[in-house]
Amino acid sequence: MPTAIELAEQFQVSLVGDGSLALGGLAPLERAQSTQISFLSNPLYRQQASDSAAGGLIVSKADLDFLQANPGAHSAQRVYFVSKNPYASFARMAQHFAKASAPIYAPGVHPSAAIDPSVSIPASCHIGPFVHIGPSVILGERVVLLGNTSVARNSTIASDALIYPNVSIYSETQIGERCIIHSGAVIGADGFGFAPDLSATGVEWVKIPQAGAVVIGSDVEIGASTTIDRGAMSDTVIGSGTKIDNQVQIAHNVTVGNCCVIAGCAAISGSTRIGNFCIIGGAANFAGHLTIADRTTVSGNTSIIRSITEPGQHYTGVYPSMLHSAWEKNAAILRGLDKIRQRLRLLDKSK
Amino acid sequence: MPTAIELAEQFQVSLVGDGSLALGGLAPLERAQSTQISFLSNPLYRQQASDSAAGGLIVSKADLDFLQANPGAHSAQRVYFVSKNPYASFARMAQHFAKASAPIYAPGVHPSAAIDPSVSIPASCHIGPFVHIGPSVILGERVVLLGNTSVARNSTIASDALIYPNVSIYSETQIGERCIIHSGAVIGADGFGFAPDLSATGVEWVKIPQAGAVVIGSDVEIGASTTIDRGAMSDTVIGSGTKIDNQVQIAHNVTVGNCCVIAGCAAISGSTRIGNFCIIGGAANFAGHLTIADRTTVSGNTSIIRSITEPGQHYTGVYPSMLHSAWEKNAAILRGLDKIRQRLRLLDKSK
Amino acid sequence: MPTAIELAEQFQVSLVGDGSLALGGLAPLERAQSTQISFLSNPLYRQQASDSAAGGLIVSKADLDFLQANPGAHSAQRVYFVSKNPYASFARMAQHFAKASAPIYAPGVHPSAAIDPSVSIPASCHIGPFVHIGPSVILGERVVLLGNTSVARNSTIASDALIYPNVSIYSETQIGERCIIHSGAVIGADGFGFAPDLSATGVEWVKIPQAGAVVIGSDVEIGASTTIDRGAMSDTVIGSGTKIDNQVQIAHNVTVGNCCVIAGCAAISGSTRIGNFCIIGGAANFAGHLTIADRTTVSGNTSIIRSITEPGQHYTGVYPSMLHSAWEKNAAILRGLDKIRQRLRLLDKSK
Repeated sequence: MPTAIELAEQFQVSLVGDGSLALGGLAPLERAQSTQISFLSNPLYRQQASDSAAGGLIVSKADLDFLQANPGAHSAQRVYFVSKNPYASFARMAQHFAKASAPIYAPGVHPSAAIDPSVSIPASCHIGPFVHIGPSVILGERVVLLGNTSVARNSTIASDALIYPNVSIYSETQIGERCIIHSGAVIGADGFGFAPDLSATGVEWVKIPQAGAVVIGSDVEIGASTTIDRGAMSDTVIGSGTKIDNQVQIAHNVTVGNCCVIAGCAAISGSTRIGNFCIIGGAANFAGHLTIADRTTVSGNTSIIRSITEPGQHYTGVYPSMLHSAWEKNAAILRGLDKIRQRLRLLDKSK
Repeated sequence: MPTAIELAEQFQVSLVGDGSLALGGLAPLERAQSTQISFLSNPLYRQQASDSAAGGLIVSKADLDFLQANPGAHSAQRVYFVSKNPYASFARMAQHFAKASAPIYAPGVHPSAAIDPSVSIPASCHIGPFVHIGPSVILGERVVLLGNTSVARNSTIASDALIYPNVSIYSETQIGERCIIHSGAVIGADGFGFAPDLSATGVEWVKIPQAGAVVIGSDVEIGASTTIDRGAMSDTVIGSGTKIDNQVQIAHNVTVGNCCVIAGCAAISGSTRIGNFCIIGGAANFAGHLTIADRTTVSGNTSIIRSITEPGQHYTGVYPSMLHSAWEKNAAILRGLDKIRQRLRLLDKSK
Repeated sequence: MPTAIELAEQFQVSLVGDGSLALGGLAPLERAQSTQISFLSNPLYRQQASDSAAGGLIVSKADLDFLQANPGAHSAQRVYFVSKNPYASFARMAQHFAKASAPIYAPGVHPSAAIDPSVSIPASCHIGPFVHIGPSVILGERVVLLGNTSVARNSTIASDALIYPNVSIYSETQIGERCIIHSGAVIGADGFGFAPDLSATGVEWVKIPQAGAVVIGSDVEIGASTTIDRGAMSDTVIGSGTKIDNQVQIAHNVTVGNCCVIAGCAAISGSTRIGNFCIIGGAANFAGHLTIADRTTVSGNTSIIRSITEPGQHYTGVYPSMLHSAWEKNAAILRGLDKIRQRLRLLDKSK
C-alpha cells in the first residue's frame, strides 16, 4: 500500500496529517475504513465526512476548515488531501487503485479470430475470440478487441483503444487513441437518407448512398448500444475528449465538438453541429441542421428544435409530471391555450 | 390433447360444461376454433366472446353469467374455465401449450465455444456456437447460452437462465435463477461517471472507475438491447420478478425493486431507487438520485424529476399532441406562460 | 467515366449542355469539381449552385431557368440534368456511382460459420465468419450475412437481403427481398406481455408466450440496434418499402404499412397499426392499440396517445425548450393551468 505522502506527491495535492499512513483504496464516506480514502466534493455531505471512518479524505480547503473545526470520532487518525478539485483528484486516485486490480488483456490473437491476410496486428494487441477484422484495417499498439466484434475494411483503430465485446465497426471508421467503446455500439452504419419519389400510387424512398465515414478523436468513450452513423457525402465527427453514454443516437454528418458529455438515450439528428464543452442531458434530442454554441447545457428529456447561438446557456423543456388526474385536466386546457390568450385579450380590451 | 377437466384441475379453475372435451391450444377470440381455448378479461369484448367459435373460454364469474344469458351460435358446445383472474389463467395455460412446441436446447457445448479452462460447465447446460466464457464464471444447472454471447470473468448465471444470442455480460455480473435475457442486451458496462477538471483551455472529463457490479434477482426478464450499467462504488440491483422491456437504459447504482414492469425505451438515471411493484410506461425517464415509492405508476413518455414519496400514485407528464398548425401557436404562447399569469393578476387587481 | 448523354438516358432526365462531357461521381455543391455532379433541390441554395464548380447539376426546370439567368464563373462548362424530382434523380445516380466502389461480398461460406445440416445455402450467398444458422432456415439467392449474426430456426431471408454484423434474428422471422438490416438489430424477440397475478404479498407477472412471428416485406431497411418484437398470438408486420432508422422500438403485434419512414429512437407500442406512407419523426412514440391513418406525419419527440383517423394530417407535441430560468417559472405555472382557466372564468363572469 502506498503511503499518504507518496499519494500526495503523485496526485499533486497538499497533505495534512501523518505522511507515513498506508492507504490501499477508495470507498464511499459511509463505508470507508481506516486504510481507505474517501472524498468530499459537496458541502451537503460535510457531517457525513466528519463521521466517516476513512483514513484519508480528499477535500477542498474550505471543507478542511469545517472538518477541523468539527472533528468526528475518527478525525485524530485521519489525513487530508487538499485539492482545488476534490472530485477530479478522487477520480485520478481511483483510477490508480483500479489499475492494480484491472484485468490484464495479454497480448496475442485468439486462434478463432478471423483476420484478413492484408492486416498486420501489432504484437502488443489483444484480439479475443470470434473477432472479425476485414481487409486493410490498421490497428495501433496495445489495441484490445475483446470478443465477437467486427471491424470492417479500411478502418483504423489507434493505440490503446479498448473495444468491449459485440461491437460493430463499419468500413472506413477512424477511432482515436485511448478510446473506449462498450458492447453493442455500432459505429458507421448507413445514415438515414432517402429521397421520396412520389408516384400515382404512393411514394418510393430511394436510398441515398452513405459515402462518408465516422471520425472519432482521441480519449472518447462510447457507451453500450450507442449508434453513430456514417456521413452521406462528408463525415460524422466526434471531437477528442468527448464522453458518450449508452443508447445515444448520433445521425449522419453530425459534428460533436471536443470534451462534451452526452448522457444516455440522447439523440442528435442529421447535420447538427454541437460545439465544444457542451453538456447534454439524458434523453435530450436535437432536430437536424442546427448549430449549438460552445458550453451549452441541455437538460434531460429536452427537445431542441432551433439553433443556439449564445455560448454557455442552459436550456430546458421538460413538461412537468403531475398526478394523472390533474394531468388529464391540464392537458385538455393546453390544447386550447390560444383560446386562453384570446379571452385574456378580450378582457384586457373590455376593461 | 388434454381434456377440459384435466386442464381445470391443473390450473385450479372451475369447469362449467363437458369435462371430456379435448382442447389443444389457445387462440384469440376471433380466430379460435372448437378445439381451442380463448379468454375474456375485459367486459368490452363480451359480444365477441359470445360469437367466438372457441371450444373453451376462460372467464370471470360475472362474464360467465353474461355469456350464459346471451348465448351465441357456438355456446352449446363450449366449456368455461371460471377464474378469479382470467388473464393470468390464460397466461399459465398458454405457457403449458407453448412448452410442447418450444425448442429443446439439447445439453452440450458447441465445439466452437471458447471457454476458459477455469470454468466447469454443468452437463445440463446448452452452450451454443461462438460463446465466450471468461475466467472463473459460474453457471448453474440447465443454463442456456445460445450463440455469439460473451460472459466475462467472475460472473455467475444461476440455474435455468436463458440467454439469447449476442448478449454481452461484463465481469462480476450476477444473474438469478430462471432469468431470460434477450439479444443485444448489455449487462454491466461501465456507468457514466466522469469528474470535470476545468483548465484555462476547457475541461477534461476524468473517468471514475466503475468498481461496482450488476446484481439481478431471480425470474427477471430483460428485453432486447436493454443496457444495465455496473455501479461505481456499490452495485446496480434489479429485484426478483421484475420484467424489463427492450431498449431500456438503467444507469449505475440504480436499484429497481421486486416485481416491477418497465416498458420499452424507459430510462433511469444514476442512483435512483425504484420501489417494489412499480409500473413504468414506455419511454418514461427518471432523473438521478430520486426515490420512487412502491406501487408507483408512471405513464409513458413522462419525465420524473422529483422523488415520489406517497406509494400507489399515478403520475403523467405527456405534452399533448395536436395538429401542427395549432401546436405552432400554442408553443409560442407556452414560452411566455408567465406573462399570461402576470396579466391575469393585473386584471384581478383592476376589477 | 460515363458521358453526360449516357447518364441522361440511363436516369431518364433531360440534358442541357455538352453531351460528351465525362462525369465520374457526385459531391456537395461547395466541393464538387468539373468532373463531378451535384444537385439543387431546394431553391434556398440557388446562389450556391450558381457558384459551384460542379461539371453537372441535377435541377428542376424552374431552377434551371434561374441558373441560366444568373450564370456563375463555371456555368459555361456545365451541363444540366433536368428532372421533375432532382433529389430522387440524385439518389439514383449516386447509387449508380456507389455501386462501382462498393465492396463485393464474394459468394461462399466462411469455414467458421455454424450452419445446421438441415439448411441448404444457395451458392450465390455470402456467409461470413461466426454466423450461426439454425434448423430449417431458408435463404434466397445472393443473401449476404456478414459476421457474428445469428438466424434461428424456421426463419426465411429472401433474395438479395444484406445483413450487417451482430444481428439477431429469432425463429420464424420472415424477411423480404432486398431488405437491409444494420448491426445490432434484433428481430423477433419476445413481445413484452405479462399477466399480473395479485396476491396478498404483491404481484407476480405471468409471462404470456409470444407465439406470433415477425413478417417483413421487401425493400425494407432496418437501422442499427432497432428492435422489432414477435407477436403474441398473431404477427408483427412491417410493410414493403418502409425504412426504419436506428434504435427504433416496435412492439408486438404492431402493423406498419408500406413505404413509411420511421426516424431514430421512435417507439411504437403493442398492437398499434400505422397506415401507409406515414412519416414518423425521431423519438416520436405511440401508445398501444391505436390506429394511425395513411400519410400521417408525426413530428419528432411527439407522443401520440389517441388514434388518428383523418389521413394526411401533421401532428406535433413538443414542449418548447427555453432558458432554464424561464422554464422553472413556466413549469410551475403549468402544473396549475386549471387554476388559470378558473380565474379567467371568474373574470369573465364578473365583467
